[in-house]
Amino acid sequence: MISLNELTYMLRDGDNFLLLAHRSPDGDTLGSAAALCRILHKSGKHAALTCADPIPKMLEFLTVGLDKFDFEPDIIIAVDVASPQLLGAAFEHYADNVDICIDHHKSNKLFAKNTYLDITAAATAEIIYDIAIALNVDICGKIAEAIYTGVVTDTGCFRFPNTSDRSHRIAAELMVAGVDAADINDRIFNTKSRACIEAELMIMDTLEFYLDGKAASITISLDTVERSGVEMSELDSMPNFLRQIEGVLVGASIKQSDDNQYRVSLRTRSPIDASAICAKFGGGGHAGAAGCVIDGDETHVKAALVKEIENYLAAL
Amino acid sequence: MISLNELTYMLRDGDNFLLLAHRSPDGDTLGSAAALCRILHKSGKHAALTCADPIPKMLEFLTVGLDKFDFEPDIIIAVDVASPQLLGAAFEHYADNVDICIDHHKSNKLFAKNTYLDITAAATAEIIYDIAIALNVDICGKIAEAIYTGVVTDTGCFRFPNTSDRSHRIAAELMVAGVDAADINDRIFNTKSRACIEAELMIMDTLEFYLDGKAASITISLDTVERSGVEMSELDSMPNFLRQIEGVLVGASIKQSDDNQYRVSLRTRSPIDASAICAKFGGGGHAGAAGCVIDGDETHVKAALVKEIENYLAAL
Repeated sequence: MISLNELTYMLRDGDNFLLLAHRSPDGDTLGSAAALCRILHKSGKHAALTCADPIPKMLEFLTVGLDKFDFEPDIIIAVDVASPQLLGAAFEHYADNVDICIDHHKSNKLFAKNTYLDITAAATAEIIYDIAIALNVDICGKIAEAIYTGVVTDTGCFRFPNTSDRSHRIAAELMVAGVDAADINDRIFNTKSRACIEAELMIMDTLEFYLDGKAASITISLDTVERSGVEMSELDSMPNFLRQIEGVLVGASIKQSDDNQYRVSLRTRSPIDASAICAKFGGGGHAGAAGCVIDGDETHVKAALVKEIENYLAAL
Repeated sequence: MISLNELTYMLRDGDNFLLLAHRSPDGDTLGSAAALCRILHKSGKHAALTCADPIPKMLEFLTVGLDKFDFEPDIIIAVDVASPQLLGAAFEHYADNVDICIDHHKSNKLFAKNTYLDITAAATAEIIYDIAIALNVDICGKIAEAIYTGVVTDTGCFRFPNTSDRSHRIAAELMVAGVDAADINDRIFNTKSRACIEAELMIMDTLEFYLDGKAASITISLDTVERSGVEMSELDSMPNFLRQIEGVLVGASIKQSDDNQYRVSLRTRSPIDASAICAKFGGGGHAGAAGCVIDGDETHVKAALVKEIENYLAAL
C-alpha cells in the first residue's frame, strides 16, 4: 500500500504509462482511467488506455483517442481493478506486471506491486480528482467529464448509500468547471435502445412472485437476448428493479448462460444478506448484491433458489 | 418582490404562520413547507402546513405532526406555488390572502402580497436552506431531511439540467448534518407498489411508435387504473420513460380522463418544443415538457396528435 504522496511521486517520475480498465468496463473504471490518461498527457507524459473487453457504445465518448499505444510502457497502472481476474482472461499476462493499482474496493486483493487504496471514496474517480489536484493539473473539459461519469456511475447518480458529502463537493467543483451533467446523465442513465426496450418488455413478462411477495424473479433467456438483439450491458440495471417493488426483500435476475446453466444476480433489502444465499450455490458478493451460477433447467433453478431464500427467511 | 432580508424580517416579526403547499403536492412543495414549518417552530413560532389535495403516501414522512392548526394565523405563506390556481380549487379562498409567496418558478404570477422569488434555485428547498441560515436555525434532523427531499425531487436526484453546483453544495452540507440520503432516495425514487408494477406492465403493452420511431406513445386507460388499483401520482414518471428510448424525439403519455377525453403529457428532446405542439390543442408548458387535453376516443386522439407532431417535424 502506498500513500497519495508516493503515488504522485511515481506518476511524476514515470514517462510512459499503460492504463488498464477492468473487464465488462463501466463508467467508473473507464471514466477514472480516461481522466488519469488525460491528466498524464497534460503533465507531458505518454499514456494510453486499454481493456480486455470492448468499450460499451454509451461510454465510447470517454475513451476516444486514448487507445493510441505507440510507445514502450514503463509503468502499468490498473484502475478500479480489485483482483487480477477482473483484468479479464485476455489480459491475464498483465496480472503479475501491474506496477500500480488505484482502487476504492474494500475487496482489493493487493495484487499489484504498489496499491493506492482509498475505501472511503465512493468511486475510483473521486481518487482521480485528488490526483489531479496533487499533480496541479487543471480539472476541466474532458477530464472533468470523465471524473463526473465515474462518480455518477458508482453512486447511482448520488442515490446509493456510498454517496458522501465528498461526492457532492466534487460534483459541485466539476459543475463549476463546466461539466454538462444533464447530458452525461442522459447518456449513462436515460438512453435505451429500441432493442433494450423490446428485451425489457419480454423480460417483464417473466416477472414472478414467491413467498407472499417477499421474493420475486425475472428471467433473461438466451432467446430473449437473441430475438431483441440487446447488448447485454444494457440489461445491467434489471436486477435492481425487483428490489424497488414494495414488499420484495429478495429479487433474483436469472440469466441463461447456456442450455442448462443460469447465472443468478440477487438483490436484497436490509437485513437480508444476498451473499449468504448465493454462498449456498458456491457464489458470493456483498450484503445487498451477490451472484451465483446454478446448473439445471429454468424450473429447477427457480425452485432451488426459492427453497434457499425460504430457508434463509425462516432462520431470521 | 421582496429581498431575502425583508423576508427574514417578516418571518422574525410574525408569530402564527399557515403554510400552503400546491395542489398535487410533490417532494419540493411539501419538503420546503415542512422544513420551513419546523424552522419556524425552532424559532418559537406557531406554524402549521396544509394542502388542498391529500399528501401522497410516500411523502407522509415529511409532514407528520405538522397539520395541527390550533391557532389564528396572522401570516399565510404559499410555498413553491407559482399561481393562485395551483393552490387547488378547495383553497381558492386563500388566493387573495396570501401574505408571502416563496418560490423558484420563472412563471410565478406574483399573486401574493409579497413574493420572494429566486429563479436561480433548482428547488424551492434551496431557498429554504438560505432562510434557515439567515434565521440562524441549525439545519439538522427532519429539517435537513425535508430540504434534501425538495432538492432531489426537483433536480431528479441531480440529473436534470437545473441542477447546479449550489444544489450539490447544499446536499453536501445536508449529508454532513446526517441526512440518510439513500433512504430518502429509496422512498422517493426506488419504491413501487405492486399495484404500480401491475399498472406499468399493462401500460407498457400499449407502447406504440410512429413516424419512423421519432414519436412514441403509451396509453393509461381508466380501466388500467381501476384494475391495478394504482395511485395516479405513482405514474407521474411514466411520460419521461418514452423520451429515454433511442431515436424518440417526442413521447406522449395519453391518460384517459373520461369516456371521451384524454389528458396528454408530452416530453420532447431538444430542439422539439413540446409547448408549441400542445398549443395546437389549447395546452401549454415548457420546451421539454408540456400538456393538453384532447376530446374524442383513443384512436382519434392519437391520430390528431401524431398529425400535429408530423407537421411540427416537417416544418423544422
